[in-house]
Amino acid sequence: MALAKALEDLIRLFERFPGIGEKSARRMVLFLLQQPKSFSESLAECIAKCNSLLHPCSRCGNITDEDPCSICCDPFRDKSTICIVESVEDLITIEQAGIYNGLYFVLGSLYSPLDDEEIVPQVLERLVKRVSEEEVKEVILAFSPKVEGELTMNLISKIMEPLPVTVSRLSYGLPVGGSVSFADRTTLHAALEARTYIKRGEGRQ
Amino acid sequence: MALAKALEDLIRLFERFPGIGEKSARRMVLFLLQQPKSFSESLAECIAKCNSLLHPCSRCGNITDEDPCSICCDPFRDKSTICIVESVEDLITIEQAGIYNGLYFVLGSLYSPLDDEEIVPQVLERLVKRVSEEEVKEVILAFSPKVEGELTMNLISKIMEPLPVTVSRLSYGLPVGGSVSFADRTTLHAALEARTYIKRGEGRQ
Repeated sequence: MALAKALEDLIRLFERFPGIGEKSARRMVLFLLQQPKSFSESLAECIAKCNSLLHPCSRCGNITDEDPCSICCDPFRDKSTICIVESVEDLITIEQAGIYNGLYFVLGSLYSPLDDEEIVPQVLERLVKRVSEEEVKEVILAFSPKVEGELTMNLISKIMEPLPVTVSRLSYGLPVGGSVSFADRTTLHAALEARTYIKRGEGRQ
Repeated sequence: MALAKALEDLIRLFERFPGIGEKSARRMVLFLLQQPKSFSESLAECIAKCNSLLHPCSRCGNITDEDPCSICCDPFRDKSTICIVESVEDLITIEQAGIYNGLYFVLGSLYSPLDDEEIVPQVLERLVKRVSEEEVKEVILAFSPKVEGELTMNLISKIMEPLPVTVSRLSYGLPVGGSVSFADRTTLHAALEARTYIKRGEGRQ
């Protein structure tokens, strides 16, 4: 059966979103068609508004409608710490966890030589400039634990070498609430390597 | 952290789609912002086009840009069979499986007295009119196997009582490719009740 062309076109567009397969796209479009017209009008309007109002923050790369963004401007934030993340999505995730009070820097991508993906040189220049000119004491690398994350950590560490800052990364280990029996081999290995000592025997060094 | 308002608004709109939680909505919106402007422009345009061009087929309720829809107009379709479905989504699923060559009728909802959901009386009138006026021989009820589906089947069967048509429903049983050990109790019971005889013993009736 050939779907109506307009329907098919809209399904194809929704399918391009991450995590949306054909079935979900179809369901979303059919839902859209069943809503009152006002819903799709505000959707279209809101998309246009986002496009015209939002842009990356010139200092950290966060998505914002002002420049610098509200995080960079916040006087209560610890300006001596910068957390480097891959994407704005990761920034929002950390931010919404409410566990961090420093500033951020969004790389935009990870270094992945196999996929021919490089981090845009200007972004790295901006990072170096910011770390050397501002009163930064520590740079925290918060990349997802995978090959590209490790490669990017190496790259950033090398770049930070000549600068007088501490560089750290998020710890790897068992996810809290997870179970040992469901952990994969690599996570178990990381958790063992980075084990925390509870008591040290003194007689048997 | 307060997200930019336009961003927050768009995330809230995406969250209203079925199956889209906060994380998915956020990811979709951030994806949208990273695409070239042409993507969001065609998205907004396509939504508007769907709204103005598409409407339910006056005969079967399928979503279409012509009237009657391409299924109702198809001369190669078996006009003596009507498959009654809950939603356009179900219609498309059956249609894309390529297993059925008759016509359809979309109810729009199931009968669910506990949720105060009734099937629109005009829809039922249209159904009766269609079955009595056209050369329909069989009506196949293809509702999801749940309480509302059963209630709707009873309702439609009663309505079809005075009309000279066969009424059938999809069979219940083990999903093909599934396993007995993963089947729930109700499915197993249905599969046992509707078992297919492979050989009948004749001596021991």
